Amino acid sequence: MARIVQKFGGTSVGDIERIKNVAKKVKREVDQGNEIAVVVSAMSGETNKLVDYVGEMGAIYDAREYDAVVATGEQVTSGLLALALQELGVAARSWQGWQIPIRTDGVHGKARIERIETDEIDRRMKTGEVSVIAGFQGLSPENRMTTLGRGGSDTSAVALAAALGADRCDIYTDVDGVYTSDPRIVTKARKLDKITYEEMLEMASLGAKVLQTRAVEMAMKHGQRMQVLSSFEDLPGTLVVDEEEIVEQELVSGIAYSRDEAKITLLRVRDKPGVAASIFGPLSDANINVDMIVQNVSAGGNATDLTFTVPEAEVKRTVQTLEAVRDVIEYEELRSDADVVKVSVIGVGMRSHAGVAQRMFAALADKGINIQVISTSEIKVSVLIAEEYTELALRSLHTAYGLDGD
Amino acid sequence: MARIVQKFGGTSVGDIERIKNVAKKVKREVDQGNEIAVVVSAMSGETNKLVDYVGEMGAIYDAREYDAVVATGEQVTSGLLALALQELGVAARSWQGWQIPIRTDGVHGKARIERIETDEIDRRMKTGEVSVIAGFQGLSPENRMTTLGRGGSDTSAVALAAALGADRCDIYTDVDGVYTSDPRIVTKARKLDKITYEEMLEMASLGAKVLQTRAVEMAMKHGQRMQVLSSFEDLPGTLVVDEEEIVEQELVSGIAYSRDEAKITLLRVRDKPGVAASIFGPLSDANINVDMIVQNVSAGGNATDLTFTVPEAEVKRTVQTLEAVRDVIEYEELRSDADVVKVSVIGVGMRSHAGVAQRMFAALADKGINIQVISTSEIKVSVLIAEEYTELALRSLHTAYGLDGD
Repeated sequence: MARIVQKFGGTSVGDIERIKNVAKKVKREVDQGNEIAVVVSAMSGETNKLVDYVGEMGAIYDAREYDAVVATGEQVTSGLLALALQELGVAARSWQGWQIPIRTDGVHGKARIERIETDEIDRRMKTGEVSVIAGFQGLSPENRMTTLGRGGSDTSAVALAAALGADRCDIYTDVDGVYTSDPRIVTKARKLDKITYEEMLEMASLGAKVLQTRAVEMAMKHGQRMQVLSSFEDLPGTLVVDEEEIVEQELVSGIAYSRDEAKITLLRVRDKPGVAASIFGPLSDANINVDMIVQNVSAGGNATDLTFTVPEAEVKRTVQTLEAVRDVIEYEELRSDADVVKVSVIGVGMRSHAGVAQRMFAALADKGINIQVISTSEIKVSVLIAEEYTELALRSLHTAYGLDGD
Repeated sequence: MARIVQKFGGTSVGDIERIKNVAKKVKREVDQGNEIAVVVSAMSGETNKLVDYVGEMGAIYDAREYDAVVATGEQVTSGLLALALQELGVAARSWQGWQIPIRTDGVHGKARIERIETDEIDRRMKTGEVSVIAGFQGLSPENRMTTLGRGGSDTSAVALAAALGADRCDIYTDVDGVYTSDPRIVTKARKLDKITYEEMLEMASLGAKVLQTRAVEMAMKHGQRMQVLSSFEDLPGTLVVDEEEIVEQELVSGIAYSRDEAKITLLRVRDKPGVAASIFGPLSDANINVDMIVQNVSAGGNATDLTFTVPEAEVKRTVQTLEAVRDVIEYEELRSDADVVKVSVIGVGMRSHAGVAQRMFAALADKGINIQVISTSEIKVSVLIAEEYTELALRSLHTAYGLDGD
């Protein structure tokens, strides 16, 4: 017997038939004697519809009302899945964020979970009742509904699993696990049986869309075992676990990429103390997320070139922000380029092996791909290259690190 | 300055533009210095969609989950209207049934309001903030969402008006008031400026669809002034008030009708003590609502004929129920007829005037319309006639009681 939290995303509960199908999957776990809590997203398309409604009311809106409107999507699914389970003879009831309650801070639209009062759910799980919990929702200190931001249901599931002391948190989705790279591009990509939290976290934040970064962070913090698996097929998925659980660690576990990058270059910035602060201070104030940063000494004395990346959607605001402080920064020219992609190799094996980055540089050079920016961390190496080389780079690196399957 | 509760039904908030239009109507009252709370229904079509979802899960369902699913319709509208008001510069916030809370009993799907904790809303109304309240919803003793049954938002509005000590409860709908009869049939029907609670109650329960019976009952109990008026036109509506407020009372205020009637006749029932109980006991146990009842002495001794009406949808169950106890009741024949209509004349003036019923019988006889069943109360006379005479009967009675407008 195990205690399991199962999470089903929007496409998994996209219509009535799919909700009934989810009920069957839940019942199978119940029949095996497991204690089950289920976290559900809104039916696919519902959240977008509700967000559009709010947008039609005006460009600037009260996030508390946004949350009241948008949280209804998950409420509907939770009630319907409880009914579908009852129809199969499984004891079940729905729970809203405010009923449990899942206490969050008061940052509406992207609230953080602070505390979950699990006593009643815990008691009911022990009697065999399935708790069907509306994901994405919580209750603010002012007793208003909050939402956790896009993909927040993953976070709800992991937080509940940790609070309930679950043996596993199963994230059901429309892919059947975590792959060594995007299978749509790299046909030789393989599904991983296991991956460490750290690697999953890097993959999530570097462009792999299979799990929310915050959910993985939380799982890592609590040592909560997770599994990513398919709602539509009966196959084992990928386990996300602690490093110690992985006996034979590969050098590199995966190759991720993100097209959502733009490169900003400031040419001949006057090289004086505090220049970096004068650039990145205003960007931070404007809430623009800066990623890779490189500073080169420029030929010819007291000037330097500075390059960094921002999300593609932020290019215009970045340029505006920097032009407004041009007098302070004193740069000669500002260039932006959105035709770039960030490609990353990820693996905890890097910690104990030298030459991992070198193999990447060599493989890309071999194909004539120019590296524009490099950024490294303990378990990943990222490079910025021209977007047109995306597929070629991914496939070459996949082969170079010995990841190709049959 | 007045304190007003405004209620807007499903068609009034049917899409984003209409919700913005409602916000303008609310703002106008606010601009006049009034304290406003607004009760909203779900956008038209939403509740039906949600009810259908629940129905697709299985024929028999847990009413607590039904309520969790169906209550989302009003939640969406309340958030959107609060946003639309803020966009017009009016301070506003949404309230769900569980937030106020509106405490109900635990009869899910048709709960009754027991208590409303208005302190916080009262405090905010005094500061000029508009409270936008999701109608139709409440909170059960077990802290689960309840709904009040179809049309329950009218009841929410009246209950809130009474609890908040409102000067008036304005029910905005797609008609512009209460008419002397259905204007689609009786072209000479007139809009009434005022009507008494008792008359409105009879009209509501006798087929006029403009207000929910329960809402009128509650208004009458609390002496809560109400007004029925149009969301789409700027015209005064019909005030529903205490009898004393109406100086010149008409003999008859309106002619109502209901096609949703079926006549059941039991022929040659053995006439013995307790026979009525043996018939209506089983029907009551089966939750079948019996309306008009007539018992005639039959020619020839120890048998009697018994006629009554039930809602058209209940004919089959009524017949099954009575056939199951045929041995106990001992009747010779059971007949049912759904081609009937109940026509009622209503007016508190009847209390002090004789001959009101006689005028009805004479007017119908004059047109050759046969009366099948008669039932009277202090302020109404109802007759059952063949359905094909509906229009003729309504127009004739409207003229006979001097109700015709220009």
